Amino acid sequence: MTGLRTDLYELRMAASYLHRGMVEPATFSLFARRLPRQRGFLVAAGLAEALAFLESFAFDDDELAYLRDVVGLDESTLSTLAGLRFTGDVCAVPEGRVVFADEPLLEVTAPIAEAQLVETGVLNLITFHTTVASKAARCRLAAGGAQLIDFAFRRTHGIEAGAGVARASAIAGFAATSHVEAARRYGLKPSGTMAHSYVEAFPDERAAFRAFAADFPTNPIFLVDTYDTPAGVRAAVDVITELGLTGPVAVRLDSGDLAALAVQARAILDGAGLTQAQIVASGSLDEDVIAAIVAKGAPIDGYGVGTRMGVSYDAPSLDSAYKLVAVGDRPVLKLSPGKATLPGPKQVFRDPTGASGDVVGLREEPPPGNREPLLVPVMRGGRRLDAADPVGEVREARQRFDADLAWLPEAARRLADPEPLIATVSPALTALHDRLAKQFAPG
Amino acid sequence: MTGLRTDLYELRMAASYLHRGMVEPATFSLFARRLPRQRGFLVAAGLAEALAFLESFAFDDDELAYLRDVVGLDESTLSTLAGLRFTGDVCAVPEGRVVFADEPLLEVTAPIAEAQLVETGVLNLITFHTTVASKAARCRLAAGGAQLIDFAFRRTHGIEAGAGVARASAIAGFAATSHVEAARRYGLKPSGTMAHSYVEAFPDERAAFRAFAADFPTNPIFLVDTYDTPAGVRAAVDVITELGLTGPVAVRLDSGDLAALAVQARAILDGAGLTQAQIVASGSLDEDVIAAIVAKGAPIDGYGVGTRMGVSYDAPSLDSAYKLVAVGDRPVLKLSPGKATLPGPKQVFRDPTGASGDVVGLREEPPPGNREPLLVPVMRGGRRLDAADPVGEVREARQRFDADLAWLPEAARRLADPEPLIATVSPALTALHDRLAKQFAPG
Repeated sequence: MTGLRTDLYELRMAASYLHRGMVEPATFSLFARRLPRQRGFLVAAGLAEALAFLESFAFDDDELAYLRDVVGLDESTLSTLAGLRFTGDVCAVPEGRVVFADEPLLEVTAPIAEAQLVETGVLNLITFHTTVASKAARCRLAAGGAQLIDFAFRRTHGIEAGAGVARASAIAGFAATSHVEAARRYGLKPSGTMAHSYVEAFPDERAAFRAFAADFPTNPIFLVDTYDTPAGVRAAVDVITELGLTGPVAVRLDSGDLAALAVQARAILDGAGLTQAQIVASGSLDEDVIAAIVAKGAPIDGYGVGTRMGVSYDAPSLDSAYKLVAVGDRPVLKLSPGKATLPGPKQVFRDPTGASGDVVGLREEPPPGNREPLLVPVMRGGRRLDAADPVGEVREARQRFDADLAWLPEAARRLADPEPLIATVSPALTALHDRLAKQFAPG
Repeated sequence: MTGLRTDLYELRMAASYLHRGMVEPATFSLFARRLPRQRGFLVAAGLAEALAFLESFAFDDDELAYLRDVVGLDESTLSTLAGLRFTGDVCAVPEGRVVFADEPLLEVTAPIAEAQLVETGVLNLITFHTTVASKAARCRLAAGGAQLIDFAFRRTHGIEAGAGVARASAIAGFAATSHVEAARRYGLKPSGTMAHSYVEAFPDERAAFRAFAADFPTNPIFLVDTYDTPAGVRAAVDVITELGLTGPVAVRLDSGDLAALAVQARAILDGAGLTQAQIVASGSLDEDVIAAIVAKGAPIDGYGVGTRMGVSYDAPSLDSAYKLVAVGDRPVLKLSPGKATLPGPKQVFRDPTGASGDVVGLREEPPPGNREPLLVPVMRGGRRLDAADPVGEVREARQRFDADLAWLPEAARRLADPEPLIATVSPALTALHDRLAKQFAPG
């Protein structure tokens, strides 16, 4: 079961709340305190996983025995935990939408013990998926019209993270993934043909290419850099010609000066009349490398992007937080240096014309002007409002990101030194904050 | 099942090998091509997970149907895959041992289709765990005698990665983890008491501390920075005194200038006669921040280290590779620019006196001098040689790391600009490489 998928302090706090009969609903708000360097925006992701986590949260007998024997919880608390499920309400920004710092991605309202117990899992999932989707979005901005393929699975943070990366990158617009299980689970296009080891397993490149094309005549991609790239391209041309392959074919470059080698490969392919043959590049790619290749006008049709996207190499996490903002009807805040929070359940109001930035306000205040509220109810009483649909969720999230990308100002989109939009705080929320800050200020 | 936990190209290559009756055993070698910047060594980790992955690798009916319907594999290949299990042999460096660039961490010898299919999972697991254990080891070097607690779960790359981080950091010497399920699974000490939200859920700090100490009188840790840190320490002192807590107690600092606040907190605690009360620090810590705090002589007894360790923030992956080095008895290599490989199954020979660096040689060559071979057989015919033992494996790995840390030269240990040991290549391996490189060289 899943109940121990939490930090010990969540369990201790929950036990204390339960012990004291503190069952008032509390609201926690999940947001990024600031964007990483070189991020002009975030792409909200991970909500479906977070909701699945909430729906499955429960303690089994073995877990309860551990909490008794090792953590020392008493029988009364344990019997309450045995029946505990997440029964709260959740509002969230739909996946694929663009968000900025200080904007709640998700708010949980539930009896405080429940809301506390699920903190770790919900914060983990939203942070991870949003981090990767936001990195993948930068690759998409760099690639222009070229297709992107997720090659990250071999170096994600564990097996399950590989599926998360495939999903998050698909939301950001990647066209395919090498990860077969993720492709099946999320309805993505699986992609991949051969590795260097395949070429090496045959006496020479031509033998390897010939064997592969015989076994997979539909859209073979020949990996041409095992020994010497131009020679590899010529071997591919020979095999394509020899076998009379007239459908889609491609060569893949995986090392060296990709832009220069692509020009050479294009010339060899075109010289042989294979103008329809495509060129795919891979090997330590990220948005900056892709942008540099694109700037040189290299004739590359697709990029396989792996590790650097899949671990969000330059910013592998997010300064995210899950903070208590209300207990019952009482808004709360904290004043810790550098980690102060705004009180109360919130809403983000967006100007669909893009003429002005987002406004973060109180959930119950009316939208200023013609602004659109970003957070929508997604769970009530511990039940999702829409049934889980792994394939449809990714498709719809991708559509939302497409739309928001069209809306996003150029300064926030650009790869180098982007300027994220800064949300302003509504007058009502400002007034509430100032009143509470005065009440709790030191001295 | 687990068979689709692979990249599509592995499946296509395997299908091609099976189709062609290529069942010769192949050997693949897994190693880091180079160490990340600011790493003087790596801590081998993830082997137990990799072996579990190998033992469970199989295709179920739904997976086979997907491979038929979407990937287009033929019935003969599918019926072979239906019965396919990993039946190979594995040699590996035991977890917890220190390794360097170009040293095989693991070698798989199996029918080539099997060895290829498991590449993605094995490379993923060894890379992830080794990356995190190596980062955690640097935190340990920085902390001196202070205890380290893994607080990373909330921002690891997904739920399962959280357990991996708890395990990897325990191997590197972390004393406890906040992750309850991981603590249970691996026999670690679970740790954690309260968050800011707990303090905020009560009318004031004293009320919160009083409630918590009443519910958990054994070793409570009071989080003192919700509103104002010195005032929080005084509140903790009042509650400790009022309740007559004479056992172990601590305060936790989670924001601000931790070194300066620790000095203030120590003075307040000592002034109240609470010289036994400990001080724990947390909040965006990594080895550099900890080293700076330690250098100031701050009176901190323990550090909670989260995100920056758990995602290995400055180097969230490793330039790892899983490369074909032999087909049957025929050693192979590749010559791709920047990605060339050494041929043949290998062994790493270490000088236990530390007087000279490691030697990478052929597996069958005799150890030079009194050197110790690092790779040992761990799986034969698809079966582990030692039964899985999640608790014992972590304990033994930690002991190995303790021993290797004592052996490790100072230049490789130091945090800033460390100098990793560079393994030399044995004369026999050099000769084999030169012979094959000449054979496959371009032109």
